[in-house]
Order: sequence, then structure tokens, then C-alpha cells
Amino acid sequence: MINKLIDGIKKKNAPIVVGLDPMLDYVPEHLKKEAFAEFGETLEGAAEAIWNYNKAIIDSTYDLIPAVKPQIAMYEQFGIEGLKAFKKTVEYSKEKGLTVIGDIKRGDIGTTSAAYATGHLGRVQVGSKSYTLFDEDFVTVNPYLGTDGIKPFVDVCKEEKKGLFILVKTSNKSSGEFQDRMIDGRPLYEIVGEYVAKWGEEHMGSEYSYIGAVVGATYPEMGKILRKIMPKSYILVPGYGAQGGKASDLAPYFNEDGLGAIVNSSRGIIAAYKQEKYASFGSENFADASRQAVIDMIEDINGAIKR
Amino acid sequence: MINKLIDGIKKKNAPIVVGLDPMLDYVPEHLKKEAFAEFGETLEGAAEAIWNYNKAIIDSTYDLIPAVKPQIAMYEQFGIEGLKAFKKTVEYSKEKGLTVIGDIKRGDIGTTSAAYATGHLGRVQVGSKSYTLFDEDFVTVNPYLGTDGIKPFVDVCKEEKKGLFILVKTSNKSSGEFQDRMIDGRPLYEIVGEYVAKWGEEHMGSEYSYIGAVVGATYPEMGKILRKIMPKSYILVPGYGAQGGKASDLAPYFNEDGLGAIVNSSRGIIAAYKQEKYASFGSENFADASRQAVIDMIEDINGAIKR
Repeated sequence: MINKLIDGIKKKNAPIVVGLDPMLDYVPEHLKKEAFAEFGETLEGAAEAIWNYNKAIIDSTYDLIPAVKPQIAMYEQFGIEGLKAFKKTVEYSKEKGLTVIGDIKRGDIGTTSAAYATGHLGRVQVGSKSYTLFDEDFVTVNPYLGTDGIKPFVDVCKEEKKGLFILVKTSNKSSGEFQDRMIDGRPLYEIVGEYVAKWGEEHMGSEYSYIGAVVGATYPEMGKILRKIMPKSYILVPGYGAQGGKASDLAPYFNEDGLGAIVNSSRGIIAAYKQEKYASFGSENFADASRQAVIDMIEDINGAIKR
Repeated sequence: MINKLIDGIKKKNAPIVVGLDPMLDYVPEHLKKEAFAEFGETLEGAAEAIWNYNKAIIDSTYDLIPAVKPQIAMYEQFGIEGLKAFKKTVEYSKEKGLTVIGDIKRGDIGTTSAAYATGHLGRVQVGSKSYTLFDEDFVTVNPYLGTDGIKPFVDVCKEEKKGLFILVKTSNKSSGEFQDRMIDGRPLYEIVGEYVAKWGEEHMGSEYSYIGAVVGATYPEMGKILRKIMPKSYILVPGYGAQGGKASDLAPYFNEDGLGAIVNSSRGIIAAYKQEKYASFGSENFADASRQAVIDMIEDINGAIKR
């Protein structure tokens, strides 16, 4: 999957991923109206509106992008119906040739981590039959519990040729409360980064490891150091755009080969029609606004990482 | 909910919680046979077997225990059907008067954390209507992202009078890789514990905070220190029994009032019938074996914490 992701990035010349994090507030009124007309103001109605929203955005951008990153929390907040929309979104994205990064930030230990890995990347055995479940290509994982939490994910990744992005340095303001604490003169995130590099050695693709890292766009000086600590790990970079990360800050996240990072934008793409810059599209044409925002983002980022 | 939990602990004289973590391997053959006869070897069949297994254990233990802790990963590994069984388990446990701790170990930031909090503790707005979703009483949360990740959960907890258990020091062997790292002469878990105490001040019940901590039974010397750092936080203690934690190690997790901690056992209770000690019950009477294991656990723990 890391090879497929890199192929997609090269072919489309687009080191970006679109975050499918559909807040109901982002969904244009006409889609909500249609869904509520059919299902009422129910969880099913909300899930239908979100699914139609996602589908339109995927349809209008899939030829430009290598990957999408649905944020499961945005679906989980609508319970079972929301999770059905998550699953449909994953399936449809894969049908369109996209790599799917499930942003699930799970993390536990032993058989529990193995169960999450099964549910999201693997297959479960029921009697003599086996089934895939949510079946993303990559998932994000929290490292706080250490190797006992990560190893069961890596084991499933090896079986299924799938991958992880492990939280190292997150994009939010308070991420430093624990992640930046100094340990023998070095911040915790560097130590976590070293573990990611080590875990990654166990499951290599052609050029890069299947085991990547999450490093926020908002901390470029840290990104530079982490890039060196984890030379073979792909870095998933959240925080571009809406969270304040600028393209000019992104160069340090990439390797000399122009690879090694994939930059996420969620709201900036999927709710582009709400920005002044794209307002002329109108909410009816929200998916065209998203397409234009993708084109602009690719240009912005490729301009900044050109060497 | 923290008051309800403490009332339950006092009334039943049982500072314990039963972990409903149903591996399909734990489910007795006759239950699987019944479920597969009706639904085939399908995800629905697996979910039905798990639900019937849980229901029988709840029915045979609810009068003895204050709380259950379903581990969502064990349901999520069966996808949507598994999550339906999770929801049914939560609902049924609450009908039986039990406090439900959703062991979900979620953690993200901002609106994403808020979405998880909504999905598990709160209610979502769909047009003019609002709905509860998984609707646990407490959930476990991962602190790696700092205050930005915790605050949205606390906000929902305040609205709904619900609570959290935040991971501080986990029970697994590799938990020290990051959690024990020394920062200015103190381990990271102590610093996280201080934040938990601080976050907890914002949402107090009568005697204890709604915001508790997870500290593994396998590190009693650390439990002792953390007990002092977080005097008003309830401590959820995993790792008793199957993971090696002994009752004699548990006293430091409790306060002088005999309160302040709740000890979890999962496999040791729900798969008791597989232990030599309870083998005479037979797999047909697995729920009676679980009841006996609960009685024995309560005695074991109360004996150890008696002052």
C-alpha cells in the first residue's frame, strides 16, 4: 500500500490527501433537504446527507489526488448509521483508485490492539469464514502505550500489506504539554520518532516503510528534525490551511527525492464553497469548488517544495 | 455519574468492574452453534453470539457489581454488526442499573474530540432533533494530544453529567517506553497525572471528580504516588488477574476512605468457565462460573484493601 500511495503521488504529482471530515454544518442545504425529505431528520438522514456529500467530492477530485483520509469521529458521532456512511466512503474511495487513510487514532495493547487492527485493516474469522470489515489501507495510531500497542497493528499490516501513520508530533497548540517534554535533553516526540523508525524497519516497501508518522504542519522546525530521525517513514502532515500551516513551511517534511510526505487538508477542501475565495461557485456547486481548491492546494504545495 | 458509580460501589461493597471484552474464542460452543444456526457463519452470527454471551453474564452478575466496561475494539473487529452488539450491551447494562464505562481509548483534538464525545457520551443534533448514540456513562481517553484533546470531552461530560478515565500509566510491559521517561527528575506519567487532577477540578461530583485516571494494577509503587497526585480522581485499575496484578498490590490505589479505585477484570470473569478453578461448572453454565468468579474477586479485593 505504501508503494501504491507513492505511485499515486508521483502519477498525479500531488503529495496531498483530502480529509473527508464531514461536519453536518459543512453539508450544503440542498443535500440535507434531499436526505431529510427521504429519511426525516434522523440519524439515517444525516448519514445519507454526509454520504452524498462525500461521494460528490470524491467524484469531482479523485482524478487529481492519490488519497483520502476520512476522520472516523465525524461518522462515529452519528452512531451506527454514521459508521455505515464511513464504510461506504472507504469502499467508494477504493473503487475510484484512491488510497484510504482511516484517521482513527486507535491505540490499546495486545489482543485489543489486534482487534482494532482486524477491524480496520485485516479480516476476522467467524467459524470457517473470514470477513474484511472497514478495510482501510492505512490507519493512524496513538503511540502512548508503547510497542505492546503498535506491534499487533504491524503484524496485521505485514499480513495484509497495509500501513500505519503513528502520532509523533500533532498539529494542535497544546501538543507540547507532553510531546515536547525534555528527556535527557531531547523532546519526547523525537524519542517517539525513533521508535517509529525502528518499528518501520520491520515492514519496508520498496523505498519507504509501510509504517509512517503524523507530524503537524504547524511545527516545521520539528518536522525538519523528525524527517532526519525517520528517513524511511512517510510523514502524514495535518494542519495545513485551516489550522494555520503554510506551504512555505512544508519543505522540511520532504526528502531530497521530493517524496516522504503527504499533506492533508480537510475543511479547506471539502468546505471550500464556504470560503470567500470560492464563493462564486455557489453551494449547489460545492464539489466544483472542492476541485478548484484541490488544484490550488497542489500548486501551492508543489511550488513550495520545488528544489 | 461518578456519584452513581460510587453509590453502586458502596451498596454492593464491590470496587470492581467486569470487562465485557468478548473474544469469539471465549464464547461457549453452544452459543455459537445457536447463533450460527440462525444467521450462518456471518458477522451477524458472530455479533448475535457475543450479545447472548454478554447478556447471560450481565444477568448472572448485575446484582453483585456496580459497573461493566465493554472494550469497543472487541466489537469493532466485527464491523457494523459488532458495533450494534456493543450498543445493545451498553443499553442492556444500563437497564440493569449498571454504570457503563466504554473502554474506547479515543483521543483527537478540537471538533474531532468533540465528535467522539458526542458519539459516546452526548447527543448529536440533526436538523431540529437530537439523538443519543452509544451513550456510555464514562469513556476512557488517551492524553497524548494534551488539553486540546481532553477539553472537548470534559465539556460534553459537564453537559451530560458524565465522566472520563484518562490513561496515565497503563498495565502493559512496554508502557514505560514513553510513560516512564524522566522529565526534570519525574516520570511522564506523574506529569500526566497532574494534568488529570487539574482537568478534574473543572468537573467535580460530591466527593470525587467526574474525571478519573487509568493506572495499571501491575505497577503498585507508581499507583501509590499517582493516588497522592490525583486525590480526587477515581482510578480505574486494569491488569488484575490475567495480566498479573495481585489483590495484595491494590491497596495503594485506594484512599483512606476505602474509595477512589475500581478494579477491572475481563477474561478472569467472562471466561472463568475456562479456568481449572471453575471448570466444574461446565461450559453450558459459563454464566454461573462468572458469578462465582465475581464473588471470589470481590472477596479477594476487599480482603486486600481492608485497613
